[in-house]
Amino acid sequence: MNGSGETGIGAGRRRLLRGAVAGTLGAAGLAAASDHSAYPADRDAPGRDPGRGEGDASSLSVALLLYDGFTALDAVGPHEVLCRVPGVRVTTVARKEGPVRTDTGELALVAERATRDITRADVLLVPGGGDRGVTAMMEDADAHRWIRRIHRHSTWTTSVCTGSLILGSAGLLRGLPATTYWASRPYLEKVGAVYTPGRFVEAGKIITAAGVSAGIDMGLHLASRLADEKVAMAMQLAVEYDPDPPYDTGSPEKADAETEALALKLLADSAR
Amino acid sequence: MNGSGETGIGAGRRRLLRGAVAGTLGAAGLAAASDHSAYPADRDAPGRDPGRGEGDASSLSVALLLYDGFTALDAVGPHEVLCRVPGVRVTTVARKEGPVRTDTGELALVAERATRDITRADVLLVPGGGDRGVTAMMEDADAHRWIRRIHRHSTWTTSVCTGSLILGSAGLLRGLPATTYWASRPYLEKVGAVYTPGRFVEAGKIITAAGVSAGIDMGLHLASRLADEKVAMAMQLAVEYDPDPPYDTGSPEKADAETEALALKLLADSAR
Repeated sequence: MNGSGETGIGAGRRRLLRGAVAGTLGAAGLAAASDHSAYPADRDAPGRDPGRGEGDASSLSVALLLYDGFTALDAVGPHEVLCRVPGVRVTTVARKEGPVRTDTGELALVAERATRDITRADVLLVPGGGDRGVTAMMEDADAHRWIRRIHRHSTWTTSVCTGSLILGSAGLLRGLPATTYWASRPYLEKVGAVYTPGRFVEAGKIITAAGVSAGIDMGLHLASRLADEKVAMAMQLAVEYDPDPPYDTGSPEKADAETEALALKLLADSAR
Repeated sequence: MNGSGETGIGAGRRRLLRGAVAGTLGAAGLAAASDHSAYPADRDAPGRDPGRGEGDASSLSVALLLYDGFTALDAVGPHEVLCRVPGVRVTTVARKEGPVRTDTGELALVAERATRDITRADVLLVPGGGDRGVTAMMEDADAHRWIRRIHRHSTWTTSVCTGSLILGSAGLLRGLPATTYWASRPYLEKVGAVYTPGRFVEAGKIITAAGVSAGIDMGLHLASRLADEKVAMAMQLAVEYDPDPPYDTGSPEKADAETEALALKLLADSAR
């Protein structure tokens, strides 16, 4: 649990709702609200980069790849951190624009752009997913071609959870240290990578994160790379990432065999 | 960083992709895939409970309220944990069905149901959002009526981040201990609640979580309440929640004034 918030209350009269102190949104915020700001009029022009062409030459584009059966938190954890880094625009991308369902089928996120319309991004981010979704992506030659094309010019190519198996299937991890979801570690070897422990593993311009929630840790690290440590530290506060897990069962090294078996059963039973 | 995974690799040959060991998805998984399983044919029948009416009398319904300007991780953190708890179905609900944009405007989640069609839920979950979105919800009498109606029969009524200000505005927190986003603590008093430190605060059947990422901790706690501690421990492993934040700046008690000011600026600048 966090420490006392009493000083926070006293000192915080000026803070009100979050962010209010920094200037009632400002002209930029109001302009953005009027047109949703996400895409210029020529948003469908082929080959346009996500996050570019908005009169902000300094913007950094993050292409967040969604696919049927991805895991929501794998995508949203790093998204939440990166979308507030100055100059960064995160754009959801999928084979087709529109809703993309997660591994349980209970939730859908909207892909703003189709992969055919995106040829460049400063950062590629590939979340993991359930067995069915990841297996399909591991066999999807079109997806692999697109991933390789984006990777060719990216500054960073990243994954969360079993997303590294997709990067590996696209041929990006041969001989490289990498990590993945705990239950999928043996699969890294099959795609030519060398399993390396860690919440995230940086190898050249590729960063792979461990399972699901590790995307938040990776996102903060990436924020420090895209901006600087001050911004990353501020983003950790902005998402109040002062974790206090109720148990100490967050990795297979810490959990017992019964917990591990139950975790795998819950995952299998919740898959569609 | 996690400990060595070498034993994990050796012992893990049987685990393959996550969940695969527990039975190639099983008949239930395949059946679910064929019809998306989320809603029966009568999904639009007024008054039907989310998660009910699927031939599973033991199911527990979680209504996850989305609104224009909500914060993605506030919603997806607990969703990721709760959606795999046996018998639990999480349904996204908003004023209207369809895409609902987050506080930055860069991301949209799909609301599966409209509030007018939902009159009961075992669990109500209200995420926080940016200033504009939360302020609007704090003044939305229709939303307050719906929240009070669901709360009347809920087993648990919960919030993440500034979602507690919405619960408070609906009149649910008078005199109760509660928490919220760190920068919004003074506002709790305005809605009649008593700010209480903690990643989450349980008061009767109301559980309020601190900011953004605290929804994951709260989700695990709620999993233990809806099922049992074994399930919650397994879900902590399932989302590999073994956090290793790169900095120690996740709360205002730990961050310095410069980091706090920058966090508020990043939030304001990223708001639409």
